[in-house]
Formats: sequence, structure tokens, C-alpha cells
Amino acid sequence: MSKKEVRRFEIDKIQNPDFLKDLSYKELDLLSDDIRKYIIDITSKNGGHLSSNLGTVEATISLCKNFDFTKDKIIFDVGHQCYTYKLLTGRNLKDLRQKDGTSGFQKMNESIYDHYEAGHSSTSISAAAGMATARDLKGEKYDIIAFIGDSSIQNGLAFEGLNELATSGHKVIIVLNDNDMSISKGVGGLSKIFRNFSTSFIYRKTKGFLHFILRGRFGRYLLVKFTKFKNWFKRKVINMTIFDNLGYSVIGPIDGHYIRHIDHAIEKAKKINHSVVIHIKTIKGKGYEYAEEDVEGDWHGVGKFNIQTGEISTKQAEVTWSSQYAVLLKNEMSINDKIVTIVPATGHGSALDSLFSIYPKRVIDVGISEEHAFTFASGLAVSSFHPVISIYSTFLQRSYDELSHDLARMNLSCTILIDRSGLVGNDGETHQGIYDEAFLYTIPNVTIAMASRSNEALSLLKESTCNHGVFAIRYPREYCLSETQEVKKIAYGSWKSELEGKNTAIVSTGPLTLKLKKALIEAKKNVTLLNAIYLRPMDENKVISLLKYERVIIYNPYATKEGFANALTERLAELGYKGEIIIKCVPTEFVKQATIEEQRKYFGIDISDIVSLI
Amino acid sequence: MSKKEVRRFEIDKIQNPDFLKDLSYKELDLLSDDIRKYIIDITSKNGGHLSSNLGTVEATISLCKNFDFTKDKIIFDVGHQCYTYKLLTGRNLKDLRQKDGTSGFQKMNESIYDHYEAGHSSTSISAAAGMATARDLKGEKYDIIAFIGDSSIQNGLAFEGLNELATSGHKVIIVLNDNDMSISKGVGGLSKIFRNFSTSFIYRKTKGFLHFILRGRFGRYLLVKFTKFKNWFKRKVINMTIFDNLGYSVIGPIDGHYIRHIDHAIEKAKKINHSVVIHIKTIKGKGYEYAEEDVEGDWHGVGKFNIQTGEISTKQAEVTWSSQYAVLLKNEMSINDKIVTIVPATGHGSALDSLFSIYPKRVIDVGISEEHAFTFASGLAVSSFHPVISIYSTFLQRSYDELSHDLARMNLSCTILIDRSGLVGNDGETHQGIYDEAFLYTIPNVTIAMASRSNEALSLLKESTCNHGVFAIRYPREYCLSETQEVKKIAYGSWKSELEGKNTAIVSTGPLTLKLKKALIEAKKNVTLLNAIYLRPMDENKVISLLKYERVIIYNPYATKEGFANALTERLAELGYKGEIIIKCVPTEFVKQATIEEQRKYFGIDISDIVSLI
Repeated sequence: MSKKEVRRFEIDKIQNPDFLKDLSYKELDLLSDDIRKYIIDITSKNGGHLSSNLGTVEATISLCKNFDFTKDKIIFDVGHQCYTYKLLTGRNLKDLRQKDGTSGFQKMNESIYDHYEAGHSSTSISAAAGMATARDLKGEKYDIIAFIGDSSIQNGLAFEGLNELATSGHKVIIVLNDNDMSISKGVGGLSKIFRNFSTSFIYRKTKGFLHFILRGRFGRYLLVKFTKFKNWFKRKVINMTIFDNLGYSVIGPIDGHYIRHIDHAIEKAKKINHSVVIHIKTIKGKGYEYAEEDVEGDWHGVGKFNIQTGEISTKQAEVTWSSQYAVLLKNEMSINDKIVTIVPATGHGSALDSLFSIYPKRVIDVGISEEHAFTFASGLAVSSFHPVISIYSTFLQRSYDELSHDLARMNLSCTILIDRSGLVGNDGETHQGIYDEAFLYTIPNVTIAMASRSNEALSLLKESTCNHGVFAIRYPREYCLSETQEVKKIAYGSWKSELEGKNTAIVSTGPLTLKLKKALIEAKKNVTLLNAIYLRPMDENKVISLLKYERVIIYNPYATKEGFANALTERLAELGYKGEIIIKCVPTEFVKQATIEEQRKYFGIDISDIVSLI
Repeated sequence: MSKKEVRRFEIDKIQNPDFLKDLSYKELDLLSDDIRKYIIDITSKNGGHLSSNLGTVEATISLCKNFDFTKDKIIFDVGHQCYTYKLLTGRNLKDLRQKDGTSGFQKMNESIYDHYEAGHSSTSISAAAGMATARDLKGEKYDIIAFIGDSSIQNGLAFEGLNELATSGHKVIIVLNDNDMSISKGVGGLSKIFRNFSTSFIYRKTKGFLHFILRGRFGRYLLVKFTKFKNWFKRKVINMTIFDNLGYSVIGPIDGHYIRHIDHAIEKAKKINHSVVIHIKTIKGKGYEYAEEDVEGDWHGVGKFNIQTGEISTKQAEVTWSSQYAVLLKNEMSINDKIVTIVPATGHGSALDSLFSIYPKRVIDVGISEEHAFTFASGLAVSSFHPVISIYSTFLQRSYDELSHDLARMNLSCTILIDRSGLVGNDGETHQGIYDEAFLYTIPNVTIAMASRSNEALSLLKESTCNHGVFAIRYPREYCLSETQEVKKIAYGSWKSELEGKNTAIVSTGPLTLKLKKALIEAKKNVTLLNAIYLRPMDENKVISLLKYERVIIYNPYATKEGFANALTERLAELGYKGEIIIKCVPTEFVKQATIEEQRKYFGIDISDIVSLI
């Protein structure tokens, strides 16, 4: 890649970031373009996180140019914005997010350039603080960078990290990637500070009038001077930011798409001997029209798409469980004005967009604040409202204490819609939804249920608002089979008999139960199939009915065995069951990226595995 | 209680706070004194939270005088500083923290004046935000107050609440009770802001020189003017606080021991139509010499004590498990310089005080930041240190996600010392340590162990540093039997046979195993007793040896059955065990206050209950 043959960079062939030092700013801009094209191309084929990666191209180039990440350390918060970093450190993305392929996140076993891993948001500052403490205890010298977005920094964990790091004396460079919009629009006071901040004026206009008159060298000069003055005034005179308050030095805000400016900021940051924040303003989706104009978040995490038309491919004929529950919830909210829906930044992912405009006061996005979502819900619940919290299974982990201490302990009624329960596929280890059933089982007063078909879902949602305390409804990242059967009320805690047979009884849960039923009928297996709609409490009569079978198979491909499967086994043992018990669950491990089907086959928990048992 | 017979107030006989309005400031001061004496008297007999309650007497009086808490709502964060509130709302404290007696926290079923409940810190702002949203949705009018300390507000949950409430438009009055010291000394940038804040000068001096020259009316006048000017300057000119940044109106800091000043602040706060912070400075332990001078936190939560001498009663001859592990950890740190100990504000409670001075760089109190503690630990662990996190079982709940996502997922090695595992007695529902074993069981790669005697504890602690990933060691709020047996290395994952017998095998865990052994020998029971030191992984050989018994009793009085007990049952079922299995665990419910012995008897899980089974 010599200086001569400027364009095109062969992005695939980059070995490491050493070549960056030899490039002119003009060449670096061309490189940025090429990286963008490459990323758009790859995600259009594999799906992935597009917008955040397009927004961080220049910043990543500048960081790789100014630091030596064989010694210095960088943590990308969440980690899904590290595609440019992966490319610059010698990893191509051809098999991005595929089984055994490149991960969509940082992975320590993938490269010596990855020093940490994440997937959940807001861990970077705390982890960097730990790494900086370690470095100083060992008396070593290198820089540690936490690269974090404006929505992630609003999470409580990030704040705890910021707060402690401020006085610990261990230096970390925090790069605040402020793009005015993360998974969903930032909420809260901190977000308002960012929005009010100088650049909201300057940067929004860059696309329009100011951009026009300020182009050229003199224009650029004016812009820089003006921004600098404004920043200085706000910080020095009005002392505006929370970072200043906590004791950080703040550099910026600067334009995160000008490599030269970022270079200068980094130079300055290196000279400061305590923790420092470099505040960069970036445009999410930068360089790809459809993503740049996206306000809903369609282009945050995206499936395959057509680059030219911006059409995102979906299986039009099928309905996801997310949309199914969104429709049911919309109907319930229209007839029950006590329902207040709370989402921690996952409204778009859970197909709840339209709900915000229909019920602007009763649908509340609290941002990436999973803990707050649940304690806030408890405040509503003690005030005679019925909160419905919509959350992904994997993020529910962060609310364990609040769910227990602030809702279940007081036996307050609320519904938790747990989206993406079960295996999630290509996001890999950090996003699996296979643990919630087990950890909810450890909390008293929590009902846990999972529908197999849409009419059961409706019945569960209605039942969940009838004073049963915390009522958790799980649903998977799958398409939903809608059945034409009429909606029958399912009595609280009861199971449904799907097939009656001899010798073997299968206790199954969730949508795969229906596919299993079909397969068993086709294979002419004479077995009993129970649909365990309620995982807790269990249907005691149906459990007792199991005692007459020689063999009980517990099939739960949506969870590990530590919840329902072990509890049912224990109950059977208590009842004196002497037959054979076979458990078919997701193993209790951290499950690597692959498609959901591949994961199920790998673990031997596919429909065919169950049928072949009989 | 007429105005004539000024002193003494009959604190026991107060029915409700209505009488406060008729009292002069002089009388209110006398009332404060009497309440203090009453609280000191009660806690000297029952134990309880002393310092925080002595610090909040005047503020509570002022709040009860200025609001009508049959309509308005108040949430005391954590809730252990509500003794004055309980007294003013007609509850005496004679049976404080006893079985069926008055709770040490707010309890909704105890009084119409209690509108929420807590026990864990930092929930008040989120809950208040939920209540305020409910109020406004219903179009009702009343005030909602969140009363929160300076250490609690540093927690991530509190920040998430603050951040969202700032822009929600629903008004809450936050009373920030800033006493420069909570469970442990506040840490972090926010704490520094508070310390730097005007009053750190004024208020520290009130006990000394300034207090002397400023007494009398003119002195008071000067003090007030000077403080006001300083506050105005800092806020208006330097715009100092994080609350200002987020968009709150801030009143204060004011002296939280002058009822008149608090009254004025409340009047002002009522007139503002958005969320507002009243920042009061108080002295923890105010009015009781020993508690006022306490820097370690001895008088935060205290057992019975002698009022005159300030002597706190302890059973001198016995060693708690906390102190036992503190000694072991000290030794380990002296021979292994890779160990860094992290505590989230519970260092004093876990007897680790001396460690801070011996290893000032390797023992880190991160404040009430349970989430940060674990992600911070992961940063150390990826940098070749071995973090040891000391935490109470009940607070570990708040770190579920970080423990899983940031440590177990990457299989990073660390030790978690889980203090107060099992029943905790008089703190009641919010503080039980009975759930951690079960929720840790839901996370892959986590080792769970519990010693029954001190030499096992030493072996476990050593083993935990030998690259087994996350290694959780549970220990209870009990005294520790130290045995003279020599220390033998216990192989990773192995159990110990304590008794060999016939027909029945008991699998027991934790310190009560030894008492059970003694009782079984005394009662001449011919049974096998296995000491399950490792709850995960299980000792496979010993599990297989169980197959020959007619009956297996799983005895775990330190946890609910959802962890080890169910897992062992499932394993036995898998191995084809056809005998009887009896599980004796703490039931999966929220356990009310009583002594630990009372709780065990109530649940039928005392030693005698097991012996009588055989």
C-alpha cells in the first residue's frame, strides 16, 4: 500500500495499523471512504451494526495512528462499533457474525489488539479503571482508552465508574462519542446537556448553510476559532459539564470526522497527567444516506439490505414475536388505562415505535437504565398503575436486584415482557437470552410463563394484569405461528395437553412445542405432550399426572435447566416418581455466535433430536 | 402535649405529627433532644441504626411539619434513618427489629404514613419518579419527597433516576442529606464535590472556633448571610453542582440541624414547579458523643451498647466468620501480591478496616457501587491481578450482570467473599442472604463453596486464587468454630465425609454441619454425613456413593433449594437414583425479621429438626 497508488486501499489486506503514520490527511480521508464502503458492503450481506460503525471511522483511524495498541489498551464500550478497528488490526469481516467467524464485538481470543470484551453497554469506564489501577500497581507505562457513546454513558454503571475513577489517581483517556442518538434517542438530563452543548448548533448546520459558507480553508479556520471560543467560554466561565464537576479535564467538543482535530486532541490528552475526556461529535450512519437520515434506529442493528435502494430484507409473510406482543400490548393499553409501558432503550428492537406516538404519556423510554426501569416501575405500581416493562432477556440481568427488592419483595403487580428469550444467534455470548428463566426462578413471588401460539400470548398478557405480582412473559427471537383457534382464557398456572399417549410424556414450553407436536404426529409417535405455558407456578394436577409414565422428557430449548427443568425434577422426586427423567435444555454455558438453528443442532435440542428419543 | 408543659415530650405517646405545627422553634429543639434520647435508649437495648437516625431528627421534624404525609409521600432512601419519622407518625420503637415488632425500615403494612419500602440503597429517586409520574397521570396534587444520603446518591441506580427525572417534567423534591460519611467514607468525584462545597468549611468549624464566635443572634445572622453569598456565588457564577448540570433547582446547602432553615428551604421548594434538590448538611451521630466522633462506622449499625461508656457489647470469646475471613485474607495478601481487594462500602461490616491501612493501594473501597466493583475487578483480572471482592450476599444481587458478563463469561479468575450468606436476622426481608447460591448457580463458570470450619476456609481461600475462574465463597452471620485440626488442602470440588452410617445419607453444607455432626453422635444416629464444601462443582464420586442409600437428606440452612439442592436432586435423578430425597432448605420466600435462630426454628430447618427426621 504505497503512497503512490492512493486509491483504492485494499481493506481486506491490511495487516496492522502501522501504515497509518505514513499517510497524509488526504489519504486518510480516502481510507475512511474505503473503509465505509467496505463496512456497508459487508453488513448489507451479513447484517450487523451499521450506523455506529460508520460514525466512528475517523476517530478509530486517529486512535490507531496515535497509539500503539500492542502496548496501549482500548475498550470499545458495548463493542459493536469496532469494525474499523478490526479492519485496521488485520481482521477482515467476510465471515462477520457467522459461526466460527469474526465476532461483531471485541474478542480477546481473536487478536492481540483486543484487550477486553463487551456486548452489554457502559462497562468500559469501570474496566478501564481496573486496567489503569493494575498498570500503576505494576509501575508500567501505557495509555488506556475507554471509547463510549453518549447514551451508554448515561447508565448507572458508567456513572459509578466515572465517579470512582475521578479521584482514584489512575489515568484513563475517555473518548466520549457523542452522536445525539444511540439505540434510541438519548433521554434524561445528561442527554440534554449534550444537546445544548455548543456543537448542537454548529454540527447540525454543517449539512446546511454553514457547511456551505464555511467550506474552504478560511471558512474552516473561522469555524474552528468560533467553536474553540464557545467551548472555552462554556467550560471556563459557565463550567458546564458533569465531567468538569467530577474533576476531569475535558477536551472538545470537537468534530469527530476531522482526523486532524482528533489527532490534536489526543496529543493534548497524552500530556495531561490525570484522567481526561475527549468529547467528539459524530454523525451516526455518516456516509450512507439512509443510515444518516434514520431517526427510528432502523440502521442501528440491521439485517441484510440492498445498498442502492436501502431496502432491508425481512420475511414479509411472517410476524416476529416482538411484533406480535407489540400488537397485543397496544390493544391492552387501549382498554386498560392503568397500563404504563416502560422500555430501557429497546423500544425499536421490540417493535414498540408506534406505541410512543399513540400513548406519549403512558409509554416511557428511560434510556439505557435497566435498573431505574424496574424501580421506577415499582413507584408506578404502588400508585395503582400497572407497569409493563419491555426488555431483552440479556439486559434483564442488570435489573435482578431491583426486580427482587423493589417489585417482587413487595409483591407489586407488573408485567415483564422478556423479548429475545432463548438463543439469539449471531450476537453471540454476550446477548444470549437463556438465563432469565433460571434467575427469575430464584426470586420469590415471580410468575414465569411462555406462550407457544399467539392466542396463548393474548391470554397471558391479560392474565398478567390481574394482580399476580411480578408476571414475566418470555418470548423468543423467532417468527410466530398464528393459529386461527379462538382465544380461550388459560387459567392461571395451568398447562395444556397437546397430545395424549403412552409410556412417555414430554413436558415442553414455548413456540417449538407446536413444531414438536406436528413432528410427533407425522412420525406417528404415541406419546403425551404437555405444553407448560406456566413455568412457575407449575400445574400441580398435570405434574401429578406425570407419575404414571415410565419416562418424562423435559424439553425447554429456550433456557438452561437451572430454572423450570430442575424445579420440575425436584417436584417429581418429592412426589416419589421412580421413572426416568430426561432433560433437554440449553447447556449452562456461554453460547458462541451462530444461527439459532445451528446452535440448537449443536446442542442436540432440535425437534428432530426429541423425536428420535422416542 | 400542651404548650405550657414544655419539657418532657412523651415520645411513646405521639399519635401523629399534627402537633408539630403548634410548637415554637424552641419547643421543637427540645423535642429534637427528647427524640434523640429516646433513640439512643432504644438502640442501646435492641441494636439498630444509630448514627444516621441521630443526624436526621431535625430534618424529619421539619418535613413532618411542612407536609401532610397522609397525602404527600416520602421515601427514605435505604430507610434505616426513619426512626424519628416512625415516632412522629405514632409508632413506638420498643420492639424495634424484634420478631413481629416494628421494622428498622419503612414498611407499608405498618402505617398509612409509609408509602414505600426499601433496605437496599439508592432506590428513592427512581421510585419517587415513578410515583410522580403516576400522580401526574391521575391529575392529582401532592408532593413527593425522596430523602437520600450523600453516599447513596453516588450509586448508579440513583444516577439513572436523577438523569431521567431531570427531563421527565414530573416534580419530585429531593432532600440530599449530606453528612460527609455514610456506611463508609464517601468515595469518588461526587463525594469530592460535596466535600469541597462551601459548607465543608463552615460546618466543620461549627464545633470549634466559629461555633464559639458565631453563637448568639448576630453571629447566626452573619453565618447565614455568608453561607448564602457563598452558595449563590458557587452556583450562579461557577455553576458547581451536578444537579444544576442536570437541570435541577438547588436550594442550599443549609444546616440540617436548624429547623427554621429547613422550613424556609421547604417553603421555597414548594413554590418551584419542577424537580428541586434541597441540600442539607448534617452531622451523623449528632448529639451522642461517641457516635459523633466515630470515623470508622462503628455506630452506623450497632448492637446493644452501654449509653454512658459507649461500650458496644460483643461476645468477646467468639470470632465471627467476617473476622475469620478478614484474618485469612490479610495473610493471603501478605504472601500473594497479585491480590487486590475491592469492597463496595462494606469494609467495616466485613471487619476489613485494618486491611486498608496495611495495603492502602491494594485494598479499594469503591463506595456503594456494586456494579462498578465487579466490572472494575474484571479490568484488574485481565491485567494479571487476582481481585478479591468482599460483599454482603444481599448486595451481590446488584452485580448479577457484571459478575456474569464481565467476569464469568470471560472466565476471569477472581474470588468473591460473600459475607452474611444465609439468614441474617433482624434486618428482615431486604437483607436476607439466602438467594445468592441459587442465582450464582444460573451463571456458567462459577464455583460456589462454603466452609464449615476455619481450616477449610483457609484452604478454600487459597484454592480460589488458583485460576478456577469466578470462585464464590459463602459465609454466614454466625460465630466461627475454630478447630485445632491441621490445615489440609481440600482438592478442588471435593466433599468431606464426616460420619459413615447406613440407610440414610445427609448432605450438609456450611458451619451448621459441625453442630449437626455433634448432635447426630450424641443421639447415636447411624447415618452418613457428607460435608458439601463445594456446592458447585459437586464431588461426583461422593454423589455416586449416595446411590446406595435408601434416603438422601439435603440440608442447606443457608440458601433456598433453587441452587445446590435442586441441582443435586437433578443429578441423582439423572444417575437413576430411586430412593427418597428430602430437601431441608430455607423456603423461597422473603423472610421477615426475627433472630436467625427464630427464623430457623420457624422453617423447621434447625439441627434438631434434622436429627428428629432420622
